Amino acid sequence: MTYNIAILGASGYTGAELIRLIAGHSSIEIKALGAFSKAGQAVAQVYPHLRHLDLPPMVAFDQIDWTGIDLCFCALPHKTSQEVISGLPRDLRIVDLSADFRLRDPEAYQKWYGNPHAAVEMQGEAVYGLTEFYRDEIAGARLVAGTGCNAATGQFALRPLIEAGVIDLDDIILDLKAAVSGAGRALKENLLHAELSEGYHAYATGGSHRHLGEFDQEFSKVAGREVRIQFQPHLIPANRGILGTAYVKAEAQAVLDTLASAYQDEPFIEVLPMGEVPSTRHVRGSNYCHIGVAADRLPGRTVVVAALDNLTKGSSGQALQNANLMLGINEVEGLMMAPLFP
Amino acid sequence: MTYNIAILGASGYTGAELIRLIAGHSSIEIKALGAFSKAGQAVAQVYPHLRHLDLPPMVAFDQIDWTGIDLCFCALPHKTSQEVISGLPRDLRIVDLSADFRLRDPEAYQKWYGNPHAAVEMQGEAVYGLTEFYRDEIAGARLVAGTGCNAATGQFALRPLIEAGVIDLDDIILDLKAAVSGAGRALKENLLHAELSEGYHAYATGGSHRHLGEFDQEFSKVAGREVRIQFQPHLIPANRGILGTAYVKAEAQAVLDTLASAYQDEPFIEVLPMGEVPSTRHVRGSNYCHIGVAADRLPGRTVVVAALDNLTKGSSGQALQNANLMLGINEVEGLMMAPLFP
Amino acid sequence: MTYNIAILGASGYTGAELIRLIAGHSSIEIKALGAFSKAGQAVAQVYPHLRHLDLPPMVAFDQIDWTGIDLCFCALPHKTSQEVISGLPRDLRIVDLSADFRLRDPEAYQKWYGNPHAAVEMQGEAVYGLTEFYRDEIAGARLVAGTGCNAATGQFALRPLIEAGVIDLDDIILDLKAAVSGAGRALKENLLHAELSEGYHAYATGGSHRHLGEFDQEFSKVAGREVRIQFQPHLIPANRGILGTAYVKAEAQAVLDTLASAYQDEPFIEVLPMGEVPSTRHVRGSNYCHIGVAADRLPGRTVVVAALDNLTKGSSGQALQNANLMLGINEVEGLMMAPLFP
Amino acid sequence: MTYNIAILGASGYTGAELIRLIAGHSSIEIKALGAFSKAGQAVAQVYPHLRHLDLPPMVAFDQIDWTGIDLCFCALPHKTSQEVISGLPRDLRIVDLSADFRLRDPEAYQKWYGNPHAAVEMQGEAVYGLTEFYRDEIAGARLVAGTGCNAATGQFALRPLIEAGVIDLDDIILDLKAAVSGAGRALKENLLHAELSEGYHAYATGGSHRHLGEFDQEFSKVAGREVRIQFQPHLIPANRGILGTAYVKAEAQAVLDTLASAYQDEPFIEVLPMGEVPSTRHVRGSNYCHIGVAADRLPGRTVVVAALDNLTKGSSGQALQNANLMLGINEVEGLMMAPLFP
Repeated sequence: MTYNIAILGASGYTGAELIRLIAGHSSIEIKALGAFSKAGQAVAQVYPHLRHLDLPPMVAFDQIDWTGIDLCFCALPHKTSQEVISGLPRDLRIVDLSADFRLRDPEAYQKWYGNPHAAVEMQGEAVYGLTEFYRDEIAGARLVAGTGCNAATGQFALRPLIEAGVIDLDDIILDLKAAVSGAGRALKENLLHAELSEGYHAYATGGSHRHLGEFDQEFSKVAGREVRIQFQPHLIPANRGILGTAYVKAEAQAVLDTLASAYQDEPFIEVLPMGEVPSTRHVRGSNYCHIGVAADRLPGRTVVVAALDNLTKGSSGQALQNANLMLGINEVEGLMMAPLFP
Repeated sequence: MTYNIAILGASGYTGAELIRLIAGHSSIEIKALGAFSKAGQAVAQVYPHLRHLDLPPMVAFDQIDWTGIDLCFCALPHKTSQEVISGLPRDLRIVDLSADFRLRDPEAYQKWYGNPHAAVEMQGEAVYGLTEFYRDEIAGARLVAGTGCNAATGQFALRPLIEAGVIDLDDIILDLKAAVSGAGRALKENLLHAELSEGYHAYATGGSHRHLGEFDQEFSKVAGREVRIQFQPHLIPANRGILGTAYVKAEAQAVLDTLASAYQDEPFIEVLPMGEVPSTRHVRGSNYCHIGVAADRLPGRTVVVAALDNLTKGSSGQALQNANLMLGINEVEGLMMAPLFP
Repeated sequence: MTYNIAILGASGYTGAELIRLIAGHSSIEIKALGAFSKAGQAVAQVYPHLRHLDLPPMVAFDQIDWTGIDLCFCALPHKTSQEVISGLPRDLRIVDLSADFRLRDPEAYQKWYGNPHAAVEMQGEAVYGLTEFYRDEIAGARLVAGTGCNAATGQFALRPLIEAGVIDLDDIILDLKAAVSGAGRALKENLLHAELSEGYHAYATGGSHRHLGEFDQEFSKVAGREVRIQFQPHLIPANRGILGTAYVKAEAQAVLDTLASAYQDEPFIEVLPMGEVPSTRHVRGSNYCHIGVAADRLPGRTVVVAALDNLTKGSSGQALQNANLMLGINEVEGLMMAPLFP
Repeated sequence: MTYNIAILGASGYTGAELIRLIAGHSSIEIKALGAFSKAGQAVAQVYPHLRHLDLPPMVAFDQIDWTGIDLCFCALPHKTSQEVISGLPRDLRIVDLSADFRLRDPEAYQKWYGNPHAAVEMQGEAVYGLTEFYRDEIAGARLVAGTGCNAATGQFALRPLIEAGVIDLDDIILDLKAAVSGAGRALKENLLHAELSEGYHAYATGGSHRHLGEFDQEFSKVAGREVRIQFQPHLIPANRGILGTAYVKAEAQAVLDTLASAYQDEPFIEVLPMGEVPSTRHVRGSNYCHIGVAADRLPGRTVVVAALDNLTKGSSGQALQNANLMLGINEVEGLMMAPLFP
């Protein structure tokens, strides 16, 4: 059986990544591609690397005929996403890649994103899209909210540890190194090659990164108490990849055992042997997440390092994995490609 | 039906790329991986990005049991390759990725590679592996010699033009820009990140690049006369990609028409509309080759630009495409993945 | 004696490079910095790398008091530059880094830049700023027009050869590889790190690059006849650097001798021994240009390769060298820093 | 007055950086360049970017005539350094860039470097070369031990805070991001462009990095008690730069005030306004170190970020600064060049 899908926001990096992945999917077909400023263009104009594919042209959203479309991916900016999704057919399954439906609490949404939520009732209905921890809910959901790419990385490293209570919940630091495609195709000076290449730096200092809203919500939920981590991201001169280095207070062996146990049946999460640490180069272009654990020389201190590709496992790969679940397809379909190295 | 294959030289970049591609192939299974210095190691040690795959360990060549193996990929250095291949079972199909069997003429081999050929009789038997132009011979061959990655790029841009005689055969210049993985995993100062990043330069000046042996052989063959092009390669700070800029004396429309016609049924060669030129970013990680044509302001002068991924279409992708043909599998199987962008 | 200068357009890359160079100059002091959108900001805000310098704030142009200012650098976009320069004091010496005064012929200007020239009389007065070939005129000039960075590279490689007549004037090809800072601090998709890194391509195909206007003017002038070269630039994933590969029909020894003789007394032009070729990594951040010559295997064909830093020798370093001449300072003052490697 | 110096180990990156800096020094002249494997070569062969300089050839160490040489820079690997330095004239001033004389305690040396120290008496005599904190001792020293580049970065961020006791001494984490030139010109797979570009990762996990020996020694000294920090370095795809992110438990304002006060008269240390953070791109090629402070959302937690160029302020720039002090030259001579951006 073949399912028909649409992608709204097809001209951004996550949209392009969705097309790349779905092009290799055996039972999903792209029926419509919606775009704003690039509506009216062929995919080959916007993304010449996809020119060999037989795809529908990019059209304005109101030109899409939703008849026969089983699922819609929304790869739109936050705020726009909730407005657009509110107007979609009520029986359409939706995987949203924006931040709009990640937070359960409308006040938390307003605090982190600065605007009141315009679709509060849908916010309540949405399922948080961290596949490995919401698999059953996702399978039955109409609307799934894809996680932040940094939020996914940090949760893969820390969530089982917080849930199991093997680490000190009041002293968790996550130092994250993010490649530039996570910032999207935005035209900003600090994303220019001449500025970023050979230059790296911290950003969103002081606990101001919006993905903290997700950490607060999810970590507090699994801990059964309020958990607030310290989170400092850095921008790195690379195109794809997130490397999260978590500093926790715990015995390394307990940390490794907890992670290995949590992920032992997961198709995409690889927990490395004690002392080995992952590299972004080893997950690029794939849906895999590698996690390593090392004991520090200081007793009771442990480092957990997680690596994934922000556009794949951190965003569009996760979205497809969730769509597979929602459509009753094998969860790994279209996602088993090996990383691209070098 | 499933075919069993072995890879000799599995620890180099082309070996790793073969594993990546075959991991997504529906009817080929990897039965043996042979290596030199890394024999005895697990694939996950040598290539952590492949750790999720269930692969045999890397072993010394003499430990491989050839029973039941249908085809062997040899991703060894030249000279080593001919020695190893001479000792393989006579009924084993072989795709060699080295330079050892590309040149028909033993004297040409000695001239370009500096040593006498040690398996001259096999040299005569080998079929040149440029799939698009030797498809039938490859399908029936026992030994196929993969082309040089630069040689493939230049031939995709120029071969139909030379064969059709639409360009001046005595004045062809190929200025080529090669990414660094084409140099292999060799430990050389000029391949270090600190030297190459932010630094680019010409190399193999004066017509000394060994892939000229292939150009001379193939272009003269299709022209029916001796053809000698001027070929100047440059090393570029990127990991994957070859961009070949060919300067030819011809009318651009005739050039475009000839190329479009030659490649109209090819699954992996995309000829762009007049005036559009390709970028390496649009073919990365894929088996596609993009070719663009532009008329210069000077009458009778035309630029042809071809882009491909040196490790895929330029090497391991070509090798798998040829193996598919030799095994009677659909030629494109395992090779239809879209490029990775960004 | 100390000279006072102003920089208009201080917030672009060439403006920042001027400040960097002048900060190390013994007898030039920066008295005013003019900017458009960034007027009102401190230099440390716009360019944190210059925060240790004691510099005037960036102000709107009309707030600059020209009293006591000896020379003004204009690092503005073309068209804006001619408008602004028309309004400057008549006795102010000016080094313009834009394209506005490079072309002698108003029609040529309009052809290449698309708009009629608004200061034709000043266009006639301006001296072309290729220091090595216009040294005396520059020393006496009021207005010097800095060259295009690609135009400088190509002329360093070719101009003495054309003037001496040692190469075939009807068959000159210049294949150029330009790093991204040459495109300025413009916010364009193809200048984003995610697009450019790991991606390179030809641009301005068909002889449409504006620096051809300079080649046509200068090469025809020194040849005493019309000379039209074929020029194809490429964008390379690096921040600084231009590598120009010129394909000429001549004997290599005559080419090398002519270049060595032409540049023997030049402080910044290094002609390499026969067969050695330059790399952009060896000139980065400096005012040096390295030129190499190699004979091709095809008789009568020679490759000339020139490398320089587009922001230094290709633009702001040239501008300072010219300003030194105009002010009667030692030409090399402030420009003798060694390249930054790695 | 002009001082004569020699450089041993001139063919590595720190040696080349010393030559670059000294080339712009008004009163130091390079009299001898000593090398191992590259002895007998001209500088232009080993480092073409220095070809314009009039330098002595690289010679074997025993061919250097020490008469009239005032100071020697040793840019050799550790262990080799102590052997070579033991044999140098007793009255020669020496700036050693290796790790051999950084640690006061021979047992600590053996613990971190694996071999017993072969020149224990000189180890006692050596002054630790962190200029800003050992200025007077350095001025009078015969042997100065240059610091580790990571050790310098961490100390610039943390040392005044530890000395003043404004942070919790038992909970200091330093997450460091190092560019690749810090690893030297070593031929290792993980330093290849194809491996490092687009790949980044933690290394020396578990508190195993040798620079911890320096942190332990120096931080304990200024604290008057044992201090052990947690230190995790990461390798980043860039050529120059170190970014250290320190997580401390303290009020941000007290942290900023302490740092601003400690460095208020320092010519090369720039403490940024509250909330601003540095970037490696803003110190590249210079002797400056930028330090920023930001309060986290969690009360009592603060992030301190320091950026410097590992080859300049982290190594050869520091060495020259120390040599200036030892020779009685103005400390900043030859070191005031602005950073290279972009």
